[in-house]
Amino acid sequence: MHERPLIFVTNDDGISAPGILALSAIAKKFGDVVLLAPDKPQSGMGHAITINSTLRLNQTNFHNVLQEYSCSGTPVDCVKMAVNHLLKRVPDLVLSGINHGSNSSINVIYSGTMSAALEGALEGTSSIGFSLCDYSIDADFTQSTAYIEKIIAEVLEKKLPKGVCLNVNIPKLKADEIKGIKVVRQAQANWVEKIDERKDPYGKSYFWLTGEFMNFEKHSTDTDEWAIANGYISIVPTQSDLTSHSSIQHLKKLEL
Amino acid sequence: MHERPLIFVTNDDGISAPGILALSAIAKKFGDVVLLAPDKPQSGMGHAITINSTLRLNQTNFHNVLQEYSCSGTPVDCVKMAVNHLLKRVPDLVLSGINHGSNSSINVIYSGTMSAALEGALEGTSSIGFSLCDYSIDADFTQSTAYIEKIIAEVLEKKLPKGVCLNVNIPKLKADEIKGIKVVRQAQANWVEKIDERKDPYGKSYFWLTGEFMNFEKHSTDTDEWAIANGYISIVPTQSDLTSHSSIQHLKKLEL
Repeated sequence: MHERPLIFVTNDDGISAPGILALSAIAKKFGDVVLLAPDKPQSGMGHAITINSTLRLNQTNFHNVLQEYSCSGTPVDCVKMAVNHLLKRVPDLVLSGINHGSNSSINVIYSGTMSAALEGALEGTSSIGFSLCDYSIDADFTQSTAYIEKIIAEVLEKKLPKGVCLNVNIPKLKADEIKGIKVVRQAQANWVEKIDERKDPYGKSYFWLTGEFMNFEKHSTDTDEWAIANGYISIVPTQSDLTSHSSIQHLKKLEL
Repeated sequence: MHERPLIFVTNDDGISAPGILALSAIAKKFGDVVLLAPDKPQSGMGHAITINSTLRLNQTNFHNVLQEYSCSGTPVDCVKMAVNHLLKRVPDLVLSGINHGSNSSINVIYSGTMSAALEGALEGTSSIGFSLCDYSIDADFTQSTAYIEKIIAEVLEKKLPKGVCLNVNIPKLKADEIKGIKVVRQAQANWVEKIDERKDPYGKSYFWLTGEFMNFEKHSTDTDEWAIANGYISIVPTQSDLTSHSSIQHLKKLEL
């Protein structure tokens, strides 16, 4: 008889967010779940880690799982604390999310959800980040449950290539409107910022970062943005080598 | 007659760190310098951005440049604020650093310095992150000045490929010991964490993240780690597409 897999769950929206409640409920069907997630929202934290201050853990009981803690740090801190302190072993699977909002294309580098999944891959285990392209407070995380279960089952059985995690983005659709799953690449896209300047009650300026999303590859059909816009769940295999291999020869020609 | 280039300078160690003082002094030789850097150390902040709270700018005068502000946010926030609020144009060059400590290999994804450089590339301009592999408070940032000037001059003249920035790491050596520059790729390496658990005065646990660096490619001679260990300044062309292109075909075979 096989042992039940050990599944670690985290996110970036915080331990009490609806998205992680949906994900831990699914994870429990597949194995023993240990959950360690930020004690507050950590969206946009990218691959930040806490090195200039200390971390705290607090036992919580939102999820009815094997072990559960909130952490004062970032999503990546949560993975490091889980693997190296709480579990003292590499889990069989790391799940991050379900994020409230898209982590497709360029969003992957700003995303705490995906940075946690990438950190899981760096720790040497199969990792998946899930995001629902719906920012509303009453987003329905249950419409894609069957697909999420299929992805988890397949990854648990076949494992992922070393150092690679999955960036899964789910369109904001009803279950019967989702057309299926596409394995695609990260679209070339960007945010064009609009800085919203305001005055505080003392007359001093403060700023909000806002922006408009720009997809530079609207006509490519092999990208995550295309898949989502056309009713598919996108899966991008994601890794941490940022080298622009195609530029190495070009740069060797510079006079340095 | 050519106009002087507009050069934007930032870092992650904070606006008064010795490394950015050294870099702004060099930048002034090449153009008009605008500087906007974090008001406190932001090491390990990765590609974090501030979306759940507000940002502040404060005029400062450490660097004797055209314009200079400290910012309450992250290194990536600094680039976004500079391009979209302060300058209202894309500068001719973004320089980040000189970082106190290495940003080679896997460090690139945790690095605020390199995330600022990558954000410069996303904004559409040539960007370079500089790091000195010396964490000591009395690190000598002047030993590599001639090399940094050569790299800046060459990049200003020839520009970088679209979306690509440079990750420049300088070994801790005297000027006449540096053997030259190598254009290389990011080594496969990782940190093996050691979580340092301590008790506060009230008997409750708190934690420091520490770790040991592991280079998995000690015998490869085309990596940044090899270049630095062998007395060369390493340059890795760096970009923000995290897709594992080589895994796409493999994943298409999964039953999804």
